[in-house]
Amino acid sequence: MAPVYPESASGKAPNRQIQLMQQARDGASFDSYELACFIHGGENVLKERRLAWERVETLIGTRDTSKLPQSYGNQNREEMYEEGLRWGKIIFEDGLKFKHTFFKHITPRYVLLNSSPFAGKIIGAYCSTELGHGTFVRGMETTATFDPETDEFVINSPSVSSAKFWPGAIGFSCTHAIVTARLIIKSVDHGPHFFMMQFRSLEDGTPLPGITLGDVGLKMSYNGTCNGYAYFKNVRVPRVDMLSRHAQVARDGSYTGTQSPQVAYATLLMVRGIIVRSVGFQLAQAATIAARYSVVREQGLGPNGLGTSEAMLISYKSQHFRVLTLIAKAYAILFAAWSFEATYKALREEQENGNHTLLSYAHSAAAGFKAWSTQTAADGAEDARKCCGGQGYLIISGLPEIAAAATATATFEGENYVLWQQVGRFLFKVMDALKQGKDIDGNLAYLQEEYAARHQTSPLAFPGPLRSTSICEAHGQDFLQPDVQLLIYRKRAFWLIESTYLAVRGSKRSPADAWNEHMLSIISAARAHTEYEVLSSFIKVIRTLPPSMSPALKTVLTKLCALFALSNIVNPATTNAITFLECGYLSADQVRTIRSLVNELLEQLLPDVISLTDAWDFTDASLCSALGMRDGNVYENIMRWVEQVPINQRAWKQNKGVYQPGWNQWIDPVLKAKL
Amino acid sequence: MAPVYPESASGKAPNRQIQLMQQARDGASFDSYELACFIHGGENVLKERRLAWERVETLIGTRDTSKLPQSYGNQNREEMYEEGLRWGKIIFEDGLKFKHTFFKHITPRYVLLNSSPFAGKIIGAYCSTELGHGTFVRGMETTATFDPETDEFVINSPSVSSAKFWPGAIGFSCTHAIVTARLIIKSVDHGPHFFMMQFRSLEDGTPLPGITLGDVGLKMSYNGTCNGYAYFKNVRVPRVDMLSRHAQVARDGSYTGTQSPQVAYATLLMVRGIIVRSVGFQLAQAATIAARYSVVREQGLGPNGLGTSEAMLISYKSQHFRVLTLIAKAYAILFAAWSFEATYKALREEQENGNHTLLSYAHSAAAGFKAWSTQTAADGAEDARKCCGGQGYLIISGLPEIAAAATATATFEGENYVLWQQVGRFLFKVMDALKQGKDIDGNLAYLQEEYAARHQTSPLAFPGPLRSTSICEAHGQDFLQPDVQLLIYRKRAFWLIESTYLAVRGSKRSPADAWNEHMLSIISAARAHTEYEVLSSFIKVIRTLPPSMSPALKTVLTKLCALFALSNIVNPATTNAITFLECGYLSADQVRTIRSLVNELLEQLLPDVISLTDAWDFTDASLCSALGMRDGNVYENIMRWVEQVPINQRAWKQNKGVYQPGWNQWIDPVLKAKL
Repeated sequence: MAPVYPESASGKAPNRQIQLMQQARDGASFDSYELACFIHGGENVLKERRLAWERVETLIGTRDTSKLPQSYGNQNREEMYEEGLRWGKIIFEDGLKFKHTFFKHITPRYVLLNSSPFAGKIIGAYCSTELGHGTFVRGMETTATFDPETDEFVINSPSVSSAKFWPGAIGFSCTHAIVTARLIIKSVDHGPHFFMMQFRSLEDGTPLPGITLGDVGLKMSYNGTCNGYAYFKNVRVPRVDMLSRHAQVARDGSYTGTQSPQVAYATLLMVRGIIVRSVGFQLAQAATIAARYSVVREQGLGPNGLGTSEAMLISYKSQHFRVLTLIAKAYAILFAAWSFEATYKALREEQENGNHTLLSYAHSAAAGFKAWSTQTAADGAEDARKCCGGQGYLIISGLPEIAAAATATATFEGENYVLWQQVGRFLFKVMDALKQGKDIDGNLAYLQEEYAARHQTSPLAFPGPLRSTSICEAHGQDFLQPDVQLLIYRKRAFWLIESTYLAVRGSKRSPADAWNEHMLSIISAARAHTEYEVLSSFIKVIRTLPPSMSPALKTVLTKLCALFALSNIVNPATTNAITFLECGYLSADQVRTIRSLVNELLEQLLPDVISLTDAWDFTDASLCSALGMRDGNVYENIMRWVEQVPINQRAWKQNKGVYQPGWNQWIDPVLKAKL
Repeated sequence: MAPVYPESASGKAPNRQIQLMQQARDGASFDSYELACFIHGGENVLKERRLAWERVETLIGTRDTSKLPQSYGNQNREEMYEEGLRWGKIIFEDGLKFKHTFFKHITPRYVLLNSSPFAGKIIGAYCSTELGHGTFVRGMETTATFDPETDEFVINSPSVSSAKFWPGAIGFSCTHAIVTARLIIKSVDHGPHFFMMQFRSLEDGTPLPGITLGDVGLKMSYNGTCNGYAYFKNVRVPRVDMLSRHAQVARDGSYTGTQSPQVAYATLLMVRGIIVRSVGFQLAQAATIAARYSVVREQGLGPNGLGTSEAMLISYKSQHFRVLTLIAKAYAILFAAWSFEATYKALREEQENGNHTLLSYAHSAAAGFKAWSTQTAADGAEDARKCCGGQGYLIISGLPEIAAAATATATFEGENYVLWQQVGRFLFKVMDALKQGKDIDGNLAYLQEEYAARHQTSPLAFPGPLRSTSICEAHGQDFLQPDVQLLIYRKRAFWLIESTYLAVRGSKRSPADAWNEHMLSIISAARAHTEYEVLSSFIKVIRTLPPSMSPALKTVLTKLCALFALSNIVNPATTNAITFLECGYLSADQVRTIRSLVNELLEQLLPDVISLTDAWDFTDASLCSALGMRDGNVYENIMRWVEQVPINQRAWKQNKGVYQPGWNQWIDPVLKAKL
């Protein structure tokens, strides 16, 4: 039986949702195309990317958004993996043909980033993490024992927990991998080293003898990739296949280690920078869907007393606040990525001259930006999903997948709680240097100034001062000034760093115990410092907008920056917001003023809510969301996809609307039983 | 090719993880069985439930936890639905046979709660929500037009957005439904009324003429149920099938409405109470898995400088804080559910005597407890998932499913943002009453006292006082006293209610606009009030522990209560924590003291972390988690399940470890291409 459509489902005239979307889009105070060019780095880049996405989406088959995306119908593990390979191949070949690599650096279609194992003549993997050992590399168990007789290393997995577990593409895709294993020579353990290993025959894909490979099964997202596991049993690797830039084993087994990891770090930093940028786009995707749904979804009589017609969801202040602050955060992440890219470029230039002075700062900035932006994006995408109510719970909304993809980034390439502690360690070293009157990295001048301000009045000693080095004297509209905002973040950061530093360094416990005791404060301090740096990056962008930019756009970006700075202070969901007051710089009165300014900014930015998200330039295919399509035609979009769900098609085509296997086996017997 | 197992995978002797778990369990200061009896309401109830779960799990087939749970292998929509029906039937029949209904009231195996459409001779559904209309019932579009000629109502879906969407079991399972539709008589719209409709033939399940039914497709969770959609085209329903307790239509079409929804509300309240209790168990499940993983997972050199051996994850303060505070929250939710059940019981007794005075308070308490507990459980389950790092991202960890199931509760049976506003409205009415010198509900005596305290010193007027009615004079160990803790929550709640009330009532805008402008503050006030009530409930349980309870258990529960009360103030993730300081009752000094007391409580409770979770009495089958099994044998549990993943089995059995469809079609062509 074909489904019975009500008359209006054919959608001949623009329906109410389409009209509401058009109205919301028309209200913008600026041209979203101008902002799109700015986000993507210029009109030429934007045009090139649009062409690339058009080619790729056409080949993939997602450009026709009237069709239910395959993965939303049935999430079968095998199908998802094959779909990932198919997409990966299309993207890889497009990059080869048109000589670009930007799919690796920007991910409007977030699912693409990790879906491709392809690299050319071999398919490589990086195989480090073990089932029992992640962050702590030195704890790894896999062994590479040198056999001087054959001039080979013998690779073994000595226990269940030593199984390599999680590496992307090792389940069924890769042919080769760089494997970390403990180097053992004549019973001496030299710790983890890198070995290039062939995992599979290039001819037919069969795993080589002694290597067991498999898939880790379904994950919350990234199911286009075969994250896998590997066991090794007496696998032999030629001596020359140990990576030997930093350590060498000679023919006679003698070992030479040259510890110079500085350059190797650079790759890690680059990857973290890419993650920051990517999660900015992920949060923007989620915010785009939530914004679009919020201007076409109507609910209740409305806060503005509009009589009997219902009110757009966005007009409810809680929704209005959440959607716009999420948008502001997406921009903040993007601009933090730009800032880090500049730091990274400077570092690479330095390093080419053999100079590594910037490395400590860059390493800390990468850790902080990565931890902050991934948590912000993951929490934000999840909140965007909740902003869409029940509809956001549907897989076809796209939001569960975006939120699940974003939340993975909080764990991979450095678990966030570990990264925060790395930032904390760096900040403590800076405080040590300040105490000893030494120079510190110029990027941290604010700590030097704050330290000097404190030092003039009182010496640093545990338990330390309980208050910020000064008291905020701003009032009213003053808080819209970037310098005033920056000071709020700066005073809070320094106070947290200082008081935690004094508590840890002044503790009578062992350094390790003192660190652990104050770990939560250390994390808070590291986060507050990073939030200061994120706001600095945003403000720097605002202050260096190109002269050619239209005044209307400049105004909107400036307001968005102020909204970001101020809303974080009063947002009930802000992590550790209590410290804005606890440090003593702000008063409760001033917080009340900030709340009211945030309300004003929200009102001023409301007409631009759609254009601020349009500017990220997602296509409907890339958002892959029945709720988030550009036309706003949300209800028809939902029904169009839902009707294509395989279980519905099967029931209608085969059985007049009855799902026979369920009915016959489980329901009918209960109905006909004598109870 | 069979996988190559390393020698130790056979697990003959207890491995290190099993030893660590045993050690952690042995360290407890109390008997977890005693606590299990307390949680479940007595030893007899606990025994009865254990027997029931044993029967049901045996029939379902999950009792053998060496087998990969089917839904973790391949999440095919059809299979998940059929699995849900199978489980539902087993549970339904067990309840009939053994005469119990507790599966509906408590859900240690959370997946059961919503998996069953079974009710006996018919299969019923409640069909209200439409694609375009959820919370706002009056906006619904489905029509029921009275036809006086045939004495029937004619049911129609006039638009796409009028499709019934989301109701559980309507996709393919239900035979009958109670449908809400606008009653139209002689062109007069009488608004939404209820109609009993038959949807499917009891003989063969075919949808009746004019009714289109389908599934809404994959959701984040609850895929054992066919949440569905329905369109109606001229479906005829006899006049007598309109539910007529509160409104009647006579044969001639004359309409009589008797608005008396008080009793109908009671069902809604009961459902919300059940949700509170259920999400307490859900959070406990997630916390149990995280706690177990945290005592057997080792990582890094360890904060305590333990030399070369790695440290248990739980010994890192951030993990220690998160896991124990999540456990405390699960108990807080359970005790809030007990408190609400007592209120509900009192309400029903009143109502049987025709008295509804308690209804307003009970309605507000249900809304607040439901909103608070579902958000706490959803955020907490997600944080528990993150506590397990990468492993928590695996579907076989069980955590993605628990977190996804918990987060649904924030939306259904009253969306939380809507519920917070209902609490706010109730609190404002109480403030109105206080202002007018009227009596208020005795459950809110604290507001009366605070109001009186304020009134003695200054009259209430906008913008109102910026500070709490008094200043906290506690110091040091004082903060461990329940009365001191309660005052902190109480002063903050009153200050938020009072200042928001004054801002809204004193506004020059229309009441609706003023409400909207201050919506975030209203929500904060409603939440703070609820947090005061939740803490009151916990403290009440602690103060009325049975005399027969062992002193050891009493001590632990008392500390857990203090941890709950104090950690919420300093937890960086607490919603709106800034108001603890903003209200002016606490000082920054005192917050520092509280931080240090929380640290002490965490240390004291660490030995009990496993027993506090064991006491919820989940079986391994019910946790359904490779990470969370009681034995702690996490790595072998993971590998045992992963090896059974169908894509692995297929690759090994058919193709020597090659996943042929992927290799042949996508990988091999790239490897052999001339690049």
